[in-house]
Amino acid sequence: MTSLSSVSPYDNMSPVAQVAYRARAAAADLAPLPRSAKDDALLAMADALEVRTSEIVEANAEDIARAREAGTSETVIDRLTLTPERVRAIAADVRHVAALPDPVGEVVRGSTLPNGIDLRQVRVPLGVVGIIYEARPNVTVDAAALCLKSGNAVLLRGSSSAYSSNTALVRVLRDAVGGSGLPADAVQLVPGESRDSVRELMRARGMVDVLIPRGGASLIRTVVEESIVPVIETGTGNCHVYVDAETDIDMAVEILINSKAQRPSVCNAAETLLVHEDVAAAFLPRALDALADAGVTVHGDERVIEYADATKATIVPATTEDWETEYLSYDIAAAVVESLESAVAHIRLWSSGHTEAIVTTSQAAARRFTQLVDSTTVAVNASTRFTDGGQFGFGAEIGISTQKLHARGPMGLPELTSTKYIVTGDGHTR
Amino acid sequence: MTSLSSVSPYDNMSPVAQVAYRARAAAADLAPLPRSAKDDALLAMADALEVRTSEIVEANAEDIARAREAGTSETVIDRLTLTPERVRAIAADVRHVAALPDPVGEVVRGSTLPNGIDLRQVRVPLGVVGIIYEARPNVTVDAAALCLKSGNAVLLRGSSSAYSSNTALVRVLRDAVGGSGLPADAVQLVPGESRDSVRELMRARGMVDVLIPRGGASLIRTVVEESIVPVIETGTGNCHVYVDAETDIDMAVEILINSKAQRPSVCNAAETLLVHEDVAAAFLPRALDALADAGVTVHGDERVIEYADATKATIVPATTEDWETEYLSYDIAAAVVESLESAVAHIRLWSSGHTEAIVTTSQAAARRFTQLVDSTTVAVNASTRFTDGGQFGFGAEIGISTQKLHARGPMGLPELTSTKYIVTGDGHTR
Repeated sequence: MTSLSSVSPYDNMSPVAQVAYRARAAAADLAPLPRSAKDDALLAMADALEVRTSEIVEANAEDIARAREAGTSETVIDRLTLTPERVRAIAADVRHVAALPDPVGEVVRGSTLPNGIDLRQVRVPLGVVGIIYEARPNVTVDAAALCLKSGNAVLLRGSSSAYSSNTALVRVLRDAVGGSGLPADAVQLVPGESRDSVRELMRARGMVDVLIPRGGASLIRTVVEESIVPVIETGTGNCHVYVDAETDIDMAVEILINSKAQRPSVCNAAETLLVHEDVAAAFLPRALDALADAGVTVHGDERVIEYADATKATIVPATTEDWETEYLSYDIAAAVVESLESAVAHIRLWSSGHTEAIVTTSQAAARRFTQLVDSTTVAVNASTRFTDGGQFGFGAEIGISTQKLHARGPMGLPELTSTKYIVTGDGHTR
Repeated sequence: MTSLSSVSPYDNMSPVAQVAYRARAAAADLAPLPRSAKDDALLAMADALEVRTSEIVEANAEDIARAREAGTSETVIDRLTLTPERVRAIAADVRHVAALPDPVGEVVRGSTLPNGIDLRQVRVPLGVVGIIYEARPNVTVDAAALCLKSGNAVLLRGSSSAYSSNTALVRVLRDAVGGSGLPADAVQLVPGESRDSVRELMRARGMVDVLIPRGGASLIRTVVEESIVPVIETGTGNCHVYVDAETDIDMAVEILINSKAQRPSVCNAAETLLVHEDVAAAFLPRALDALADAGVTVHGDERVIEYADATKATIVPATTEDWETEYLSYDIAAAVVESLESAVAHIRLWSSGHTEAIVTTSQAAARRFTQLVDSTTVAVNASTRFTDGGQFGFGAEIGISTQKLHARGPMGLPELTSTKYIVTGDGHTR
């Protein structure tokens, strides 16, 4: 049987075009594979990560040494670090992906048309997925596992600070994939440490089916604005907690503190508190104390500041900039609003459209807020921190899309697929 | 109740930014509307088109006069022309859209999470949809109706050749929308007849949620490459008919002729014939005669030409260019291939990924072709001409997407929506 991987040569191609071309060929081979073949490769990847842990940890040590020399902060070095324990945890994640259902082949719609034609819309892989990401080398393995499970070839463009780690990890993964009979080119590192390789990826329309940038806001903005390859925008979160006129004050304080302070550095943490004026006097003094206890600085509007006097609050006057800032720190913007509609208008104007929560005892308010707010996730009487593929029960997450096309909110395996229609007749013509 | 449409002024905005800004406000008002409110507006639109037909036909006469003066071909003038009958047919289409189910509010996924949170993924409008299209003024009404039904505001950027017609149509539609209590700004014509307004639309990221170019290949390519607003690519069709080794010759000839010649000017017409070498001697002489009878010129490879002698075929030698050409005329490229896999490799290399058909009696071949071909639609023993929203039973079609993200194949109302997650707890925190 002729292999689809052997159609044409790599002459005159740049290094990035070569990996993309190889990935396309691998993707063609992956697409029709049954789940068992993909799961076998995933389990082989997990085993190989464990067996070759020392090789990975040694390569990682080179990155850490370079980072130390460059005066990198200990927080970033911690994110970069791979220990034998962390490698075991990464391998466990890969086994977990193997245990998830295969999205490919799922029949999304199907019917028999009036003329007797059978119509089916079936999930298929996207093809070649490019991931552009920053420091954490665990993303290398996560992304490779999720793409392989969904039948996609992946092009990994990690940061230069993790180059040695990523090179070792991809070597281990490719050996495992190839060893289990699948094309090793399904998992490839994009060569080159400079920004040029990112630019080349962004121009590779027709070779790369989608780019998913994961990381800082500036990286994401660059890719969104410059790429002619379709992009899925991820992870910018200016999330709001709105405390309605009719509310359970205890619940509102708990949800606020959890949304803001349980893990402030992530995209589903709250960045702005909006309080209905009718509940401000009852809620704000308690909320400001609780925020102070959690070590949070409040950037308040004039009406919030009015309630700060008798509290422990560290409070600074809010400027317009505060409404649009994703702090990712122990800071929160806060304003008093006249109505639920004012809260919605504020959110529509300033939110990044990630997650907004309402705390209310009113069914009508919950319903109206849910209808009017146009974000990936609207939480009613629950923390913003639940917007997460793991929490949603997807078993895995490749990122949180904050765009409206293709995928919105936490992206699991189905979001890494497209569909095709299969039309079956017996000689049907029009 | 405060209206969300009255948040800020239009100072210092360009004309295109102003319509986009107004559309955003209208979209916010449309999103929570129940089906009945939208259907009432659609029926009012249909009635108004009929009542004000003469106003529309008179405006259309201006466009036609200008086109005649400019020496436009009669085919294009015919596409541009609105008669009272055609306006009635357009109004009937709008009533048909009103009768379709509302995609907004459909629960796509839903479950109760282990912690008791209720999770629902619900269809919501995209927001503001920009349509960039060429001559036919019926698209103006179609697009407005489909967008309104799916809760979206629409920005219509038609061709300058239809400017008077589109202006009259949009005036009639806006009056009807406003008269039924919905925001008239849900339907707007993009001002300006020059390319500048298209360029401005393409830069309006954050104001416009998606651009859908409909029309010629050059328009679509420009929008795909230059837009930073997300784009849905539509309508390029280099479709293939593959006649397998094991085949019903009569059926293969019928499907070939229907795919190529029933309506050659549309994107789902076949442009290339691939024939398995084992069936070439039995199939090609009959196929070449049938193509000749249908007035089709064959651009054949050497092995096809071998079979032309005893036939009526008009045949010219194929060049590489023929494999990638979307003729949209009575022309077809033709090649003999060694195997099903060679046919698939040819399709992967040259197809635009629209529709490919196989004619075969072999269940194994049908299955393998269906698995390996990566196009929006794979037809087994059926004409390529079935790839169509109407034929698929969608009741309407805004275009045929040939990209993999968001929508693939004929796009109906659900493809004009995004989703959001609704998380409902009773004080849940992490």
